[in-house]
Amino acid sequence: MSQTLNPAADDFQRLRDSFAQQTAMRTLGIEIHHIKSGEIELGMPYQTQLCQQHGFIHAGISTAALDSACGYAAFTLMPEDSGILTVEFKTSLLAPAQGEEFRFRGKVLRPGRQLYFSQGEAYALLQGEERLIATMSATLMCIQGREHIKN
Amino acid sequence: MSQTLNPAADDFQRLRDSFAQQTAMRTLGIEIHHIKSGEIELGMPYQTQLCQQHGFIHAGISTAALDSACGYAAFTLMPEDSGILTVEFKTSLLAPAQGEEFRFRGKVLRPGRQLYFSQGEAYALLQGEERLIATMSATLMCIQGREHIKN
Amino acid sequence: MSQTLNPAADDFQRLRDSFAQQTAMRTLGIEIHHIKSGEIELGMPYQTQLCQQHGFIHAGISTAALDSACGYAAFTLMPEDSGILTVEFKTSLLAPAQGEEFRFRGKVLRPGRQLYFSQGEAYALLQGEERLIATMSATLMCIQGREHIKN
Amino acid sequence: MSQTLNPAADDFQRLRDSFAQQTAMRTLGIEIHHIKSGEIELGMPYQTQLCQQHGFIHAGISTAALDSACGYAAFTLMPEDSGILTVEFKTSLLAPAQGEEFRFRGKVLRPGRQLYFSQGEAYALLQGEERLIATMSATLMCIQGREHIKN
Repeated sequence: MSQTLNPAADDFQRLRDSFAQQTAMRTLGIEIHHIKSGEIELGMPYQTQLCQQHGFIHAGISTAALDSACGYAAFTLMPEDSGILTVEFKTSLLAPAQGEEFRFRGKVLRPGRQLYFSQGEAYALLQGEERLIATMSATLMCIQGREHIKN
Repeated sequence: MSQTLNPAADDFQRLRDSFAQQTAMRTLGIEIHHIKSGEIELGMPYQTQLCQQHGFIHAGISTAALDSACGYAAFTLMPEDSGILTVEFKTSLLAPAQGEEFRFRGKVLRPGRQLYFSQGEAYALLQGEERLIATMSATLMCIQGREHIKN
Repeated sequence: MSQTLNPAADDFQRLRDSFAQQTAMRTLGIEIHHIKSGEIELGMPYQTQLCQQHGFIHAGISTAALDSACGYAAFTLMPEDSGILTVEFKTSLLAPAQGEEFRFRGKVLRPGRQLYFSQGEAYALLQGEERLIATMSATLMCIQGREHIKN
Repeated sequence: MSQTLNPAADDFQRLRDSFAQQTAMRTLGIEIHHIKSGEIELGMPYQTQLCQQHGFIHAGISTAALDSACGYAAFTLMPEDSGILTVEFKTSLLAPAQGEEFRFRGKVLRPGRQLYFSQGEAYALLQGEERLIATMSATLMCIQGREHIKN
């Protein structure tokens, strides 16, 4: 049977399955918008229960989305049998996370044998206009041969 | 009249009020344990709905707690009429966030006129033992005279 | 007299004067290639006396160039009477700094009232080919009214 | 035969040999003060040729010393046949690098199988008083089995 009957296999199904297991993403209302090789976009609506003291989205929440974006961008390039762990990330908060909706884009800068360097950008949509509100620089690790870390 | 009649003033009430306005902290089940001048400890129980794909607490969730810990540690040293914003932070993920409970300690390294440098540490409690799982290095900004940023 | 008789004034002379005062740049053999509003490129030849233990340029040396690139990119957008200080930066080392020559590009992501966020990229030239070897994410501060910090 | 006949083996000779190959350290006048398992202190005198535009030591120079301090602290704990590479670091500049002399302390926070997390602190000595001027948070990688990276 031809592979085209199973489009999921081409549609980053392994990544989608892993993302679905991230209960934090569901709790925070973060979803996958697009995936391609080395890149991903996630989205999240504004939610009053995820704010800091001035009513902006808490920097840790944007960071959770950016971390997943940077990680899954790297995961698109990792071998089938590998798992992924975040080593570290830095978030720069360029502007308050104010908007009706947010987009988080992750992109691989350099895939290595074990270490992957990704870059993330968070955008707020305010009255239809997209504004860069945060950037992330992240290091991810590709894990192979450890039973409990296989995605 | 003795100051002891107004314990709240000594009890970082302004900080507690600001923390209570961080709806993200309530949603994530993060609470204040202790506060003293230049330092704070927050706590959070393990929660299945805040995990990444291997069942560990998502790095973004630990980061949200560390950001609040680093920020409020700085806030203890800021003038009465000031507000606080996070400029940037970096999180290093030393070990998986595995445990029954988590503690997040923030401490000011250097208070400046406008910029404060804080350092944070996240610990997991696993069978009663505390283990360092993440560190944060953060920059915070003290904001004065902007009407909508007053805590 | 027409301003065209004094082209230096349009040529970021204040920045060039400040750069010339950075004795570290001279010692490390780092020079300005191009400047435009919000962007700068610096260059440096390979030098055997600036290496780490495997003969690659030391990460601290690339970082010195990236810091100056990120800072001066921000400086192009700051008011005439202001000075600049670096708040913090993070360097990701994507590949060994191996090459005949190196280029360091700084770009402002967001100019604020006091804080500027810049991004830097370091490239190695190896047999004529440019390769991304490091990235920087930096925060800079615009200082006004302090006598000893006026560039 | 007594171990004192081979003091080098206890004296981190492999580390000292590697440090001696870092030509950048010699050029910058940076020397080893003390080494113990998981920790190192480096020192550097003030040098007018290593400054930024206000006459303070350039942040990249302090970073070069902190990077070597964080890396060699990790190297003390790595297997005999391994090499070390820096993955990334972040430097926070708490105060201007003003002083007669500087000390750079690196300490391992967590040694892993391949990744080591270190923390660094830079101090300025001004009229005999030590002042914390910068901190570093760094990730290092232990390399085994690559011929050209063996220290």
